[in-house]
Amino acid sequence: MDVTNELGVPQETLDAEIKSFFESAPPLKNSDDIGEKLKKFIERNSLSLGNGEARRVVCVTSGGTTVPLEQRCVRYIDNFSSGHRGATSTEYFIKAGYAVIFLYRRGSYQPYCRSLPEDPLLECFEYTDESSIRVRESHSEAVKKAISEHHAAVAEGFLLKLPFTTIFEYLQMLQMVATSLRSLGAHAMFYLAAAVSDFYVPWKSMAEHKIQSASGPLDMRLVQVPKMLTVLRKDWAPMAFCISFKLETDIKILLEKADMALKKYKMHMVLANELLTRKDEVVVVTSNEKISVCRDKTQVGDVVENHLIRVIVERHSAYVEKPDI
Amino acid sequence: MDVTNELGVPQETLDAEIKSFFESAPPLKNSDDIGEKLKKFIERNSLSLGNGEARRVVCVTSGGTTVPLEQRCVRYIDNFSSGHRGATSTEYFIKAGYAVIFLYRRGSYQPYCRSLPEDPLLECFEYTDESSIRVRESHSEAVKKAISEHHAAVAEGFLLKLPFTTIFEYLQMLQMVATSLRSLGAHAMFYLAAAVSDFYVPWKSMAEHKIQSASGPLDMRLVQVPKMLTVLRKDWAPMAFCISFKLETDIKILLEKADMALKKYKMHMVLANELLTRKDEVVVVTSNEKISVCRDKTQVGDVVENHLIRVIVERHSAYVEKPDI
Repeated sequence: MDVTNELGVPQETLDAEIKSFFESAPPLKNSDDIGEKLKKFIERNSLSLGNGEARRVVCVTSGGTTVPLEQRCVRYIDNFSSGHRGATSTEYFIKAGYAVIFLYRRGSYQPYCRSLPEDPLLECFEYTDESSIRVRESHSEAVKKAISEHHAAVAEGFLLKLPFTTIFEYLQMLQMVATSLRSLGAHAMFYLAAAVSDFYVPWKSMAEHKIQSASGPLDMRLVQVPKMLTVLRKDWAPMAFCISFKLETDIKILLEKADMALKKYKMHMVLANELLTRKDEVVVVTSNEKISVCRDKTQVGDVVENHLIRVIVERHSAYVEKPDI
Repeated sequence: MDVTNELGVPQETLDAEIKSFFESAPPLKNSDDIGEKLKKFIERNSLSLGNGEARRVVCVTSGGTTVPLEQRCVRYIDNFSSGHRGATSTEYFIKAGYAVIFLYRRGSYQPYCRSLPEDPLLECFEYTDESSIRVRESHSEAVKKAISEHHAAVAEGFLLKLPFTTIFEYLQMLQMVATSLRSLGAHAMFYLAAAVSDFYVPWKSMAEHKIQSASGPLDMRLVQVPKMLTVLRKDWAPMAFCISFKLETDIKILLEKADMALKKYKMHMVLANELLTRKDEVVVVTSNEKISVCRDKTQVGDVVENHLIRVIVERHSAYVEKPDI
């Protein structure tokens, strides 16, 4: 008889699906370089702090993953996500004393850059008569903050940035980060804000050349991406504090699905977001509470992450004291 | 009996498909503003030059369009295109005395910015001890060129930038540009470098909420985007000089398809690109010639667009003298 897990999927089937996903994936191009960077970053942040405690490290994932529809990728399915939540949360985690591994989609929002316009270089700078360039007065503070705080975080070793594009890159990199963070035990955290594709086209069954647009409709069949949260919790980093996200357009099914995810994937916390109100309110769902965290609308420039990360750090501290393995 | 055109599709069917596409499209949000900008830009550039000739105006389209899979767009299909070709060509068209309407995908390459790194703000600038920011020496020339030449082109009225994201926005905007340029007759040109989706999900048949990832594979049916090149040539701007692009991964079918496109859509020129060599070589296909245009590899920093735009301007000049209506 098969051993089935909470997903109702036999464990063997899930293992086979995961094996098949990774075998099907094109090999990560710069895995040696990523491995080296991770090793150095974790070593540096494992040195005990002045108070004898080790620094906590959080892996923040941010932005959407793509699913290529052709091997020489012209068309792909993308998941919309600006990366605003991940980038902003990274700032507050660093402020709270965490080191952050920022696993982000190329081109998505960067920490400390959220007050900048869409195309900062062309919009924030102007050419002067003395044939030099200068920051426009209106963007002066935002540009200074972006450059100084971002560079300081990287230079001081609190921020490691690792970019991805496809679902294949994302999951291979997440596995590398997770197995590297395993040694930190309960001091490690995963804050999985990336919008990860649910469906993919297995690399080997994919069209090698461009899909030809002959007449008639295009029918496509995509298969489900195996639920990696299960292996992350079970094998990759079993002691790490794990937070996943739910984003739904229908409020009715949101909390229901958040509860379900908490149990199914053994998350320590699920952050429930409704598409239209997600910048004002997030519901923190744990096994024994539901806390609505809101942006303070009376404070100009306040963001929900300011309050959210505070709640998370408290819960993580309690977990570090007494991990429920 | 139906009148059929070269596409083998009855004209009535094509008209109905186009009508259905535009009716299905969500209305363009800022169409008044776009209309106003176009009007001013074309008026300004219609004033005759010193030599009694009117300035020529080219609409360069650039980057890929997206096809939303849900009305409250979380997932979408995207066409990969960096926008490098369109952005670079824009620079050379302006240099050749054209005014350019740059219809580009948000976030794609911008004219004069192709020598910059991926995230120019964070990579090109540094914070100094005097709490100010400055350009890193290594990027100094690229940053100066980007900001000064870009701003000059906009300020002098030679460059109008209009951003799009979805296939719905793109085709509605292309129609607005084309009908505005009609008055310029043969002096107008279309340089259609954008990677336009071949298939779409009609807005009204689209899921209103997020597609739920229940178990099992996802089957999708997409319908073909009607061939707008035909209406562009026939109705929107019948006198304009029209250049379309073919990009294929298989060299064998590339030239065949370029020839076909030339005839089917009555293009004046088709630029044939092979995915892997497109930065070194482009084949200019017209009704009576095939010219291979190459980057000069002995010149550091030379780009194929330098030579390509020269050939195009020559052919356009001949067309202005003697349009083959």
